[in-house]
Amino acid sequence: MALMDINVAPLGTGSPSVGGFIVEMQRLLAKQGLPYELTDMGTTIEGDIDQLLAVAKALHESPFLMGAKRVYTVIKIDDRRDKETHLRQKVESVKERLQ
Amino acid sequence: MALMDINVAPLGTGSPSVGGFIVEMQRLLAKQGLPYELTDMGTTIEGDIDQLLAVAKALHESPFLMGAKRVYTVIKIDDRRDKETHLRQKVESVKERLQ
Amino acid sequence: MALMDINVAPLGTGSPSVGGFIVEMQRLLAKQGLPYELTDMGTTIEGDIDQLLAVAKALHESPFLMGAKRVYTVIKIDDRRDKETHLRQKVESVKERLQ
Amino acid sequence: MALMDINVAPLGTGSPSVGGFIVEMQRLLAKQGLPYELTDMGTTIEGDIDQLLAVAKALHESPFLMGAKRVYTVIKIDDRRDKETHLRQKVESVKERLQ
Repeated sequence: MALMDINVAPLGTGSPSVGGFIVEMQRLLAKQGLPYELTDMGTTIEGDIDQLLAVAKALHESPFLMGAKRVYTVIKIDDRRDKETHLRQKVESVKERLQ
Repeated sequence: MALMDINVAPLGTGSPSVGGFIVEMQRLLAKQGLPYELTDMGTTIEGDIDQLLAVAKALHESPFLMGAKRVYTVIKIDDRRDKETHLRQKVESVKERLQ
Repeated sequence: MALMDINVAPLGTGSPSVGGFIVEMQRLLAKQGLPYELTDMGTTIEGDIDQLLAVAKALHESPFLMGAKRVYTVIKIDDRRDKETHLRQKVESVKERLQ
Repeated sequence: MALMDINVAPLGTGSPSVGGFIVEMQRLLAKQGLPYELTDMGTTIEGDIDQLLAVAKALHESPFLMGAKRVYTVIKIDDRRDKETHLRQKVESVKERLQ
């Protein structure tokens, strides 16, 4: 399993606020069936690489469906195949070691 | 105020695990006096651009102090000057609109 | 048409050098039939979003086939649908305006 | 020496074109005295970590000086301290090995 952090930003929308686009993307994500978590700087999603890239496609297309002319998407994928990785696991592990 | 997402990865360490480096960076962050939150794919920090870049420098140097020979750092900065932005604010706002 | 910048880094390989992995990825890219350009910090590829994500998958898998246990991939996609965009076009346009 | 890839995007400008901002940033870069290269997806700059973060600050501020209200900046830094790294070196090395 891998984790993906994705941020999809419409450019040239005429307003610095992009909350409406993010709300729509979260609705879309809720239907995908993969564990995910909204963070302040993106959304983290858990899945295998095929699942993650399929979700990336859907999220990237979303602002175009809402009228955007240009979309800038940044994706980070951390894919570890020597052991299972799940959402919140890295955070919990580091927090334990900090105590 | 701006938000920064930063991920600092040592390359060529001989082990796919980098938890020890992340723990050390979190200790370092705790001393900086800026609001921050560890996520699965990085750390999000709140501050003005000078504060954020100073912290980025400290975090980026950290693995070298622990013996790493090469460090790969990815930074995303979302800087909005038409209104105040704080950690957890975007997440809370989107969650409210989703209800 | 969109442009994608992709950087695929194996973690925990035991050596700070990753040139062998990059050479293999360039060989793989040459077979994909899309325009691309190697830069110092990644590879830029031109295509539509489906083509780009298919190539991203292939490049991301490549280090695993060479024995890597963990791969960290960073992707930036700039997708503009109000006009055609091609490799080298933005660079040429800016250079012209700078003269 | 390290290499930095930086992309600075103004959000909410009302136009999907951001060429004017990029031209201004290239003018600014030309005055900094560091080796750099404009690519289709960003600008790659060579320097030590302090020089690179100082340039990142200047580039990030540039769209605000031109009236932008929100700026989204993505930075990748590849910092190798076991040997010298220079602009175009990685590209040349990979191209040689591909022949």
